[in-house]
Formats: sequence, structure tokens, C-alpha cells
Amino acid sequence: MGSDDLVKHHSDYTNFDTTDASKQSVLFQVVENYRALVDDQRNWVCNLANAASLIWEAYHKLNASGLSKADVNWSGFYVVDKLDTNQLILAPFQGKVACQTIPIGKGVCGKTASTKQTQLVPDVNKFPGHIACDGETNSEIVVPILLDNELKGVLDIDSLTLEGFDEVDADFLQKLADLIAATCDW
Amino acid sequence: MGSDDLVKHHSDYTNFDTTDASKQSVLFQVVENYRALVDDQRNWVCNLANAASLIWEAYHKLNASGLSKADVNWSGFYVVDKLDTNQLILAPFQGKVACQTIPIGKGVCGKTASTKQTQLVPDVNKFPGHIACDGETNSEIVVPILLDNELKGVLDIDSLTLEGFDEVDADFLQKLADLIAATCDW
Repeated sequence: MGSDDLVKHHSDYTNFDTTDASKQSVLFQVVENYRALVDDQRNWVCNLANAASLIWEAYHKLNASGLSKADVNWSGFYVVDKLDTNQLILAPFQGKVACQTIPIGKGVCGKTASTKQTQLVPDVNKFPGHIACDGETNSEIVVPILLDNELKGVLDIDSLTLEGFDEVDADFLQKLADLIAATCDW
Repeated sequence: MGSDDLVKHHSDYTNFDTTDASKQSVLFQVVENYRALVDDQRNWVCNLANAASLIWEAYHKLNASGLSKADVNWSGFYVVDKLDTNQLILAPFQGKVACQTIPIGKGVCGKTASTKQTQLVPDVNKFPGHIACDGETNSEIVVPILLDNELKGVLDIDSLTLEGFDEVDADFLQKLADLIAATCDW
């Protein structure tokens, strides 16, 4: 994938190629397919909705292929709430119903927002002030979405398994978050 | 469910009770759980994101319980694009990556938007001008979201099976769409 020539339907953007048998290769395709999708579209809701789907499908393919420990039960976004900039508000996601708002500074998403630093959490139950939208979640990664160092939101992925994510995930998800920041009108 | 007393985590809103063994009962819970969720929240992106999840989880429970023919592969929303009111633009959803924009009047979503009437399509391949975001979809229901008869968007559900939806779905999804229209700031 990564080329529009091979896309018959939009759903084909989630047909990730695992012949390289590496997490890096699939996460690279997530970034490149997102780039192709948003070529002519800057609506943030639309772009985040498709990005959440790309991430969900990629991690399920990775887990089924034995290339990622993460058994992803939630992938999506919180953005800065324009009506109250002290909190994040739920944005497009895949997975079960989630908390609507998160105070900046609180929990894994809130800490990512307040520090503008990725939080790689091998065991959420040991994270001080963790907000459990889903009690089955065991590990989590949250990456800030920053435009000119201004916080726009966070990219959040939850896993049923402990230690679901590592530095490879953090690197590629930061690339994706940076691309999302630059390709949307916020 | 339907009562906050029984909710420990937000994900519990998707623990639908099927002891009544009826589609009506589960779809009623979707409407009531949506109502409980949005009690103190009018952000349309947040509310549509959780609504898409409620619908997805409910139909998967219904299908697994033999209470619905629909094998849902996409549930979500398109809204009127404020930058070009002649088209719909992708909003929160669950499922694979989808078409970003749909001209009003074109395809099942577009016809729902132009006619402000629910489209119950037993076989999408026979629908004139059908836009296939996913070639695996076989049936579809699309319900208009109207506030004071003004179109805000559409609620769209796709099924892998033919004839996935019927008048029971249409009735409850219209109740949900009406509630969504009234409970969000657009």
C-alpha cells in the first residue's frame, strides 16, 4: 500500500503488508497511508477519525502476526476543549465508550498534555492518578499533538496486555502525531 | 444498564443486557445509554464518537446473540461540511477507513441527506450511484439527523450481510438520531 494505485476502496488503506515481518514496516505504512488520505483534506474531525481506524487496524494486524505485544482495545484522540482549555475532550476513536473529558495534568492523557511529553506506561495500574475508562486496560501509550509547541491534543492507545508498547511505537506514533498536527485545521 | 449506579467504567456503557432476547430491548438500551452519557456534555464530536461505539458494540452483541442479521462492519456519522454545504464530511465512526466526503444527493448517505428520509437498503449493489467505501459491504441503513427539519448530518451503518436491517432498526435509529440532534451543539 502507500500508493493510491492499489486502492480500490477507502477500506483498502487498512490492508497493511506484513511481508517484512517488522513492526517498523507496518507503522511506517500507517504514517504513509495517513499522508495519502489527507492529501486534499484538512478537516481535523475527518482526519482524526480515519487515523484512529488506521491505528486500530494496524495494531490488530501486528498482534495477529506476532509483531506486537499490544492487544489494542482503544485507539483514538483527545483534543484541547475550546470551551475549557484546562481539559481535554474526547475526539474520534475506535473501541468501547470512553471518558468524555480529562483534566489537563490528570491521568496518562492529562500528564502527556501538561508535560508535552510521550507517556509510555507498561502498567497503568501503577500510574499515579490513572483514569480508568476501561478497567480491562493494562498498558498505554499517549503521544502529544503539538503545532509550533502548542498543544492541540493527544493520541492515545490502550492495550489489554501489560507492556504493550515500546520505543519503536513511541517513535512512529510521534511521527504520526507531528504529521496530524501539520495536516489539520484545528 | 441505563443507570449510572451500575457503571464503574465508561466502557461498561457497552455491556448490553440481552436477557430479553429482543433487538428492541438492546436498541432501547443504546438510546438510553446515549442519553445518560451526554447528560452534561453537548460537544458534537465527543457525543458522536461515543454514539458510534455504542452502535458498534450493540450490533455485534445482537449479531452474536442471533438477534440481528446485520454483521456490522462500519457504524458512524457524516455531517454537513461547513466549508462546503453541498457535501457531507466524515465524522466519528467505528470500522475501516472511509470516504472523506460525499456529495449531497449521491449514494445512500447523499440521498438520505437530500431527501431527509431514512434509506433502508437491503442490497447496496442494486442502489443507483452507490459509493463503495468498502467493497465488502452488502446492506446499509442511513438515518437523517435533523434539528427543526434542518439537516445536521446522517447516521450510517453498514453490514457485510444482505438485508441486515429492518423497520425495527429504522425506528430505534431514528429515535437515536433525533436525540443526537437535540443533545449536541452543532
